[in-house]
Amino acid sequence: MSSDSPVNFNSQGSKNENDPNDNKNNVNNESFDQLINNHAYNIHDYATEFKLPEKITLGRYIFERLKQLNVTTIFGVPGDFNLTLLDKVNEVKGLRWAGNANELNASYAADGYSRIKRMGCLVTTFGVGELSAINGVAGAYAEHVGLVHIVGVPSLRSQSNHLLLHHSLGNGDFHVFEKMSKDITKSTIVLHDLNHSPGAIDEAFREAFLSQRPVYIAIPTDLVDLTLPSTYLNKKLDLSLPLNDTEAEAEFINNVFNLVKKCENPIILVDACCSRHSCVSLTRQFSDLTKFPTFVTPMGKGSVDETNPRFSGVYVGKYSPDYVKNIVESADLIFSIGSLLSDFNTGAFTYSYKTKNLVEFHSDYCKIKHAFYTNLRMEHVLKRLVTKENSSKMLEILKEKDYYSKNTTIPPYITPKLDTKKNDKELTHSFLWDHLSLILREKDIIITETGTSSFGILQTRFPSQCIGISQILYGSIGYTVGACLGASMAIEEVEPERRVLLFIGDGSLQLTVQEISTMIKWNLNPYLFVLNNRGYTIERLIHGKTEKYNDVENWDYLSILKTFNGNVEKKYETKRIATVEDFKELAKDKDFAKNDKIRLIEVILDKDDAPTNLVHQATETAATNSGTSK
Amino acid sequence: MSSDSPVNFNSQGSKNENDPNDNKNNVNNESFDQLINNHAYNIHDYATEFKLPEKITLGRYIFERLKQLNVTTIFGVPGDFNLTLLDKVNEVKGLRWAGNANELNASYAADGYSRIKRMGCLVTTFGVGELSAINGVAGAYAEHVGLVHIVGVPSLRSQSNHLLLHHSLGNGDFHVFEKMSKDITKSTIVLHDLNHSPGAIDEAFREAFLSQRPVYIAIPTDLVDLTLPSTYLNKKLDLSLPLNDTEAEAEFINNVFNLVKKCENPIILVDACCSRHSCVSLTRQFSDLTKFPTFVTPMGKGSVDETNPRFSGVYVGKYSPDYVKNIVESADLIFSIGSLLSDFNTGAFTYSYKTKNLVEFHSDYCKIKHAFYTNLRMEHVLKRLVTKENSSKMLEILKEKDYYSKNTTIPPYITPKLDTKKNDKELTHSFLWDHLSLILREKDIIITETGTSSFGILQTRFPSQCIGISQILYGSIGYTVGACLGASMAIEEVEPERRVLLFIGDGSLQLTVQEISTMIKWNLNPYLFVLNNRGYTIERLIHGKTEKYNDVENWDYLSILKTFNGNVEKKYETKRIATVEDFKELAKDKDFAKNDKIRLIEVILDKDDAPTNLVHQATETAATNSGTSK
Repeated sequence: MSSDSPVNFNSQGSKNENDPNDNKNNVNNESFDQLINNHAYNIHDYATEFKLPEKITLGRYIFERLKQLNVTTIFGVPGDFNLTLLDKVNEVKGLRWAGNANELNASYAADGYSRIKRMGCLVTTFGVGELSAINGVAGAYAEHVGLVHIVGVPSLRSQSNHLLLHHSLGNGDFHVFEKMSKDITKSTIVLHDLNHSPGAIDEAFREAFLSQRPVYIAIPTDLVDLTLPSTYLNKKLDLSLPLNDTEAEAEFINNVFNLVKKCENPIILVDACCSRHSCVSLTRQFSDLTKFPTFVTPMGKGSVDETNPRFSGVYVGKYSPDYVKNIVESADLIFSIGSLLSDFNTGAFTYSYKTKNLVEFHSDYCKIKHAFYTNLRMEHVLKRLVTKENSSKMLEILKEKDYYSKNTTIPPYITPKLDTKKNDKELTHSFLWDHLSLILREKDIIITETGTSSFGILQTRFPSQCIGISQILYGSIGYTVGACLGASMAIEEVEPERRVLLFIGDGSLQLTVQEISTMIKWNLNPYLFVLNNRGYTIERLIHGKTEKYNDVENWDYLSILKTFNGNVEKKYETKRIATVEDFKELAKDKDFAKNDKIRLIEVILDKDDAPTNLVHQATETAATNSGTSK
Repeated sequence: MSSDSPVNFNSQGSKNENDPNDNKNNVNNESFDQLINNHAYNIHDYATEFKLPEKITLGRYIFERLKQLNVTTIFGVPGDFNLTLLDKVNEVKGLRWAGNANELNASYAADGYSRIKRMGCLVTTFGVGELSAINGVAGAYAEHVGLVHIVGVPSLRSQSNHLLLHHSLGNGDFHVFEKMSKDITKSTIVLHDLNHSPGAIDEAFREAFLSQRPVYIAIPTDLVDLTLPSTYLNKKLDLSLPLNDTEAEAEFINNVFNLVKKCENPIILVDACCSRHSCVSLTRQFSDLTKFPTFVTPMGKGSVDETNPRFSGVYVGKYSPDYVKNIVESADLIFSIGSLLSDFNTGAFTYSYKTKNLVEFHSDYCKIKHAFYTNLRMEHVLKRLVTKENSSKMLEILKEKDYYSKNTTIPPYITPKLDTKKNDKELTHSFLWDHLSLILREKDIIITETGTSSFGILQTRFPSQCIGISQILYGSIGYTVGACLGASMAIEEVEPERRVLLFIGDGSLQLTVQEISTMIKWNLNPYLFVLNNRGYTIERLIHGKTEKYNDVENWDYLSILKTFNGNVEKKYETKRIATVEDFKELAKDKDFAKNDKIRLIEVILDKDDAPTNLVHQATETAATNSGTSK
């Protein structure tokens, strides 16, 4: 078989010419270049085009810039130090104020929004507001999510008088809260005069966008209404990635070719920062070009189309399925793209490659074996790897070594089936996650909460072009309710027909449940699957299996949508499923499949049941905690 | 009239010999000495008395010590780095694990608990948990509330290996979270070996108790189960206030007498730190002794018994009732006890005493005019002021100057009355707060949320021995739902018959609503008054009267108790009141008055209606924010 028509790894063994990933609308697959390719960003004379007055306020400047960044929903909670700032959101055509139930939820929502659109924005008030949101901002920092946290703070005059204002610590110290945000953001700034503000804001936005980390901007109330020429907005925000050193890049690529020449079983392993740093599309091109088996980590799940014939499964160290473990660990060349090696992402640090030939692609450096190439950015490198010239070279090398006649066989993907006989057995995690793809559809956004859901989903095969959202590294329970709101608002802005499905345990839901109210307010139609196992099952597995501290109060989950719906009667649907038969009916229900209303589905599961990989991981965590593990 | 039978200032003009404040059980009126006068603290051989094994774990040591401090409910949320620690809560007889719905709520609950019992404890997990709680801890710091924040952190071994554990920022930095807590606590410690831990823990507890501020203690998972002799617990925790310098104290008191000799219109003004630092009872003695008119600030409300004939009203600077303003501002000697001069506590800094004769009592210093007496602690000073000897001296001085024949007349307190005619007028804030005392009872705990409630309550006269809880300085909305849980659990432990009433707006409720579930779990029976005005009315008054960002989604509030009640059918009651007639019925309803079930009362109010003093304050805040005020 020649390299011109290489073997495909899909179950049918046929070539998949119409790769579904070609769809340009697959938002989180876009490169940075594509993302900022929106009208508001590229228009030459922004001020004239959007009919701005000659002078605009500094507050408005911030939000016009966010619009240029394609951030058109602003999350947060009003507070007396940010109210005049919120007026400015309303002034910007095309922007909306989400109005969250609380600040932590707002930060989670901005994070979820950013995971779809690569940038999110959160507005809080001094002290009480910003500190309530700080855990969500820290999560965005840990997980590489671009975010702007804007805080309305007391006027410069109050600050210089050291007034003991409400929302302060009562000691006249107005800097303490900014200080607390320093370690969980890429940078913090407190605006202090009009002249320096536009430049400082632009620079902060650039940093958040390129580093995919949060930045913190405090704006005193008396600066909000100061004015500047609207033509300042005509100066294009510089969002370009710094260029790579051409020689270093050439050397790196040359070394890659040399490694490919010598290898027999190369693979590609895709992790979190691939999608965060917008390399999903380039990674696909590289995978398509080489036809190397392509794996994802838990945090990378969704970054590789799972109907793509190269997709070969999820690698979680020793907790991987056997065939995945065998292929990855016997590979003699690994292309690792955007790795983030946390415990839950690596099967408790149980990666055990045999090879030393590891090629790492990161957002701000690359690495081959032990050699660091500092400031070599993966987006540029990947782009260069798939140029016409380098593509030909790669194919030539692979042809020469007759790679495609010898390559590894990946077991065919078997679509789960449901038997037609009535089956009243209770639902189990094992069944649920194995068969969930029967409920999923192309282009779904699948959000899984830390716990049984984030582990369970690893055994579910995604349909084409799905996006996965989960907070595997930071793992703040309750995160996904906010993230579900944020992702729903983001996808509504770009591809409103796409469905959003949330899978969350009862324990986690209780932390942030009120944000469902904001979903109802905005007429969003997510599917909220509430896995009711009467508590924190992930904790039960780690420690305290029968302890009451791992139980939560059992709510009447089916009445939640009614409670938050108030006296405005919006459409909603609630269901409870407890058996295989219930699941089968849901999978067959065509009305249910249509996201025309918000739905809450309570899924009854045994309190000790859990996905197998979670059981393994929990045992390991318990050992690490007690100090008995390595 | 002689000084032996001085005029009383109550409405009947009769002496009130049976001062209700004499009741020893009035928990937050106790002095520190009385507070620690519990069996577990004072027992000589604790280890034997409570049948402890010879060796106990370090984890258990922490909670046994908390029991000695009379902290018998532990708030928090389980997480994998604190699970083994939670086992130890169960081991200590008489302790209970509250199990909150989320960490922010838990921190508010621990704060509310501490406002009743002078110490509270909160347990969270590393990173995600502690940061979610940080805003509540900051509030406790700002408002002088004694709190221990215990955080379960990764094992020392994991930390020294810089593992990229979940819940971390993914950079191997395990100190960042402790650092973030430094500025909002009295001290932070990370336990790092067994030997130093008991001493460090004892010292942290002492600090939290005496300073009435939070402390932060991180305990790595691998230290929790290390053991130490249980006899360590026999060493009594040193909770004694450092003694005052006797000479400085004598000089101070002598100066007080000199000022009293010269004054004509002295008053006492009681603020937040009076109750926080357990000087309520001493203040009462001082007020009873001198018969000086006694006022409270908004943060001091509840610290002076409002049926006490000396009680003269609430002073809020220029927003005070005229008669209050007149007396306070024309006083020529002011005894200020535990002041905390924030904006909302002072009518936007509009104190305008005519006198320079200000005597200030603080927890760690005192002051006469401009002279500071550092390290002079008010508890000792007040105690010395009311000794038999000094009492006689004070009475003699007052008799000599014939004080009681010339003293200020305080307008009589008029009990609000309801006319018998049917009145279907809509409820207003003005009516509600003026007549609320018809619903209140002796010894009620009255909790008011920042906003219309915390301002409105200033115009309500409390029955005897009530306790007021509000977060006037820090003003984190949503606080009171958690605080209501905490206060309910605290009062259940000491005087279970006392009622707890929460007044909260719909906007604030939405931030923390899920904590009602924890109240149901513990069969607590608070009254939850939800003031439904469709949004953040306090913000509307400051800015954005008709802006949508100040609206909140209208919920079906009456179904909240059902939703959180799950399938366990516990008793509850819901009501909606909208008119004066509805209010009258509620006030007459004897069944309603009995706290035998949890109740939610939705109070319908106009969205723009607010208490007058809030309207004034909001205007001032808007001016400060825009930089147009002083």
